[in-house]
Amino acid sequence: MSSGLVVALSGGVGGAKLALGLSRVLPAEELLIVANTGDDFEHLGLTICPDIDTLTYTLAGLDNPATGWGRRDETWSFMETIATLGGEDWFRLGDRDLALHVERTRRLRAGESLSQVTADVCRRLGIGPRVLPMSDDRVRTRVRCDSGWLDFQDYFVRQQCRPVVRELAFTGAADARPQPEALAALAGGNVRAVVICPSNPFISIEPILAVPGLRAALASCGAPVVAVSPIVGGRAIKGPTAKMMQELGLEVSSATVAKRYGALLDGYVVDADDAPGIEARLHVAPTLMTTLEDRETLARAVLGFADKLR
Amino acid sequence: MSSGLVVALSGGVGGAKLALGLSRVLPAEELLIVANTGDDFEHLGLTICPDIDTLTYTLAGLDNPATGWGRRDETWSFMETIATLGGEDWFRLGDRDLALHVERTRRLRAGESLSQVTADVCRRLGIGPRVLPMSDDRVRTRVRCDSGWLDFQDYFVRQQCRPVVRELAFTGAADARPQPEALAALAGGNVRAVVICPSNPFISIEPILAVPGLRAALASCGAPVVAVSPIVGGRAIKGPTAKMMQELGLEVSSATVAKRYGALLDGYVVDADDAPGIEARLHVAPTLMTTLEDRETLARAVLGFADKLR
Repeated sequence: MSSGLVVALSGGVGGAKLALGLSRVLPAEELLIVANTGDDFEHLGLTICPDIDTLTYTLAGLDNPATGWGRRDETWSFMETIATLGGEDWFRLGDRDLALHVERTRRLRAGESLSQVTADVCRRLGIGPRVLPMSDDRVRTRVRCDSGWLDFQDYFVRQQCRPVVRELAFTGAADARPQPEALAALAGGNVRAVVICPSNPFISIEPILAVPGLRAALASCGAPVVAVSPIVGGRAIKGPTAKMMQELGLEVSSATVAKRYGALLDGYVVDADDAPGIEARLHVAPTLMTTLEDRETLARAVLGFADKLR
Repeated sequence: MSSGLVVALSGGVGGAKLALGLSRVLPAEELLIVANTGDDFEHLGLTICPDIDTLTYTLAGLDNPATGWGRRDETWSFMETIATLGGEDWFRLGDRDLALHVERTRRLRAGESLSQVTADVCRRLGIGPRVLPMSDDRVRTRVRCDSGWLDFQDYFVRQQCRPVVRELAFTGAADARPQPEALAALAGGNVRAVVICPSNPFISIEPILAVPGLRAALASCGAPVVAVSPIVGGRAIKGPTAKMMQELGLEVSSATVAKRYGALLDGYVVDADDAPGIEARLHVAPTLMTTLEDRETLARAVLGFADKLR
């Protein structure tokens, strides 16, 4: 088996599943995960980073498999009480989850970077691989619907993805600096593979690629770039990927995702049903990750495929 | 029985007991409570107002009689988790209590005054009497100990009152504007009595009296000013009152408290053991408030005494 650094790009739930698989088949120092921060937002005076938190909770074994977000063994006293005080309760924050948001917000206000806070959280939760935000600068995904532009979490959680999506924008991306450690790792000549996890391409991966310099650094790192399709059997596993595709006038298929990534892709991992009609170099493997074993098996398949592309 | 407005000055636990008694023997519109904000502080990025919160929780029947602070039926997931993240856990914030701090901080940052937020909290918790902060401007009690100046909650909670107190200061008091509704009520000619609740004089009542204009407004409101001694049988009921007196070189007695309030006092309510040697006009009554009935009985005694002083 090859060695070298595996750089994974990930959003929330789907991406975190493969990131967990990768973390279980690779030594900690050989995995670096670049997390989407486009769906971060300010709520109740707190900075909330849903994708980073889903990743760290998943890697630490603290994730809540029933919800796909937040922590397991959670309590809800805060949320119950804030509702009685007339506070906003549409974004569910458990009491344990809240501790992370309060502590992170305090440290960001005190001048620490999101990278520093995230690294410390990972250390304290016993997470081996590095988890880096795509940027320490603020990037915020916005969604244009028929009623106008919405903040992402307003669209995603408050309105439960009901509005029809016409356009997406990543506010702040043009001025954001890529996370320096991620950039240095990509330029270091020791990258084994870049793995684009099976996250929603529009709202999880494209914000990362929109940070100036990151796409170029990925393309020129000297390692194969392999994506795993978030579409299985012509459907999205979870979340609004398929609905967004339709609303944006795109065919709901793995091929559509491959086209979005375009020349960046060296290889593409798809489920057997999704293979026909895709021009990228393919590896066909079961991509539905139900069990922990599924995550590890897919991680190994992706790495083996990437190694063959070198 | 007389009518007119009763204005009560109160700190936390001891004061809140009498405030509760007053609230149960007076129509809601005849009671206005001016709360100390000198022990407010910023912690974990949140603005925490311990005396206001003890008052509102007590008046709403949500107080925790076991601790004297916080809410009953509380859960502690937030606190447990923030400790694992390396956050500060010396000031105990329950999950339900936290909702108030988060929501208040959000609203203060959005430009609402502490008075507005407190009024809305009272309304939502079903509290009839008005609870007003002594000022919407920031006043912070500090404690000079042998090691230097400490923030009040550092002294009070983190160091559990262990350092020897040499001096107290109310930072910001000289520039603080008295809460305008309290000032207007005192000037309105309809005050029946001013009640100085049995709170710690040094850290609960004197910060209120240090707000420019408030002491004069109390003295000239045309109603008798009656204090209830926080010393019962030569001892403080709770908290560091007696220890502070000793360290400040004062005799631990009800007489010492009366001397601190000086010419402001028209009458003084003390327990039988504490009466000898006090020059103020006295009313002797049991001042230890153990049961709810004790609180009501003392409230009636204080009001009856004040009415005789008119």
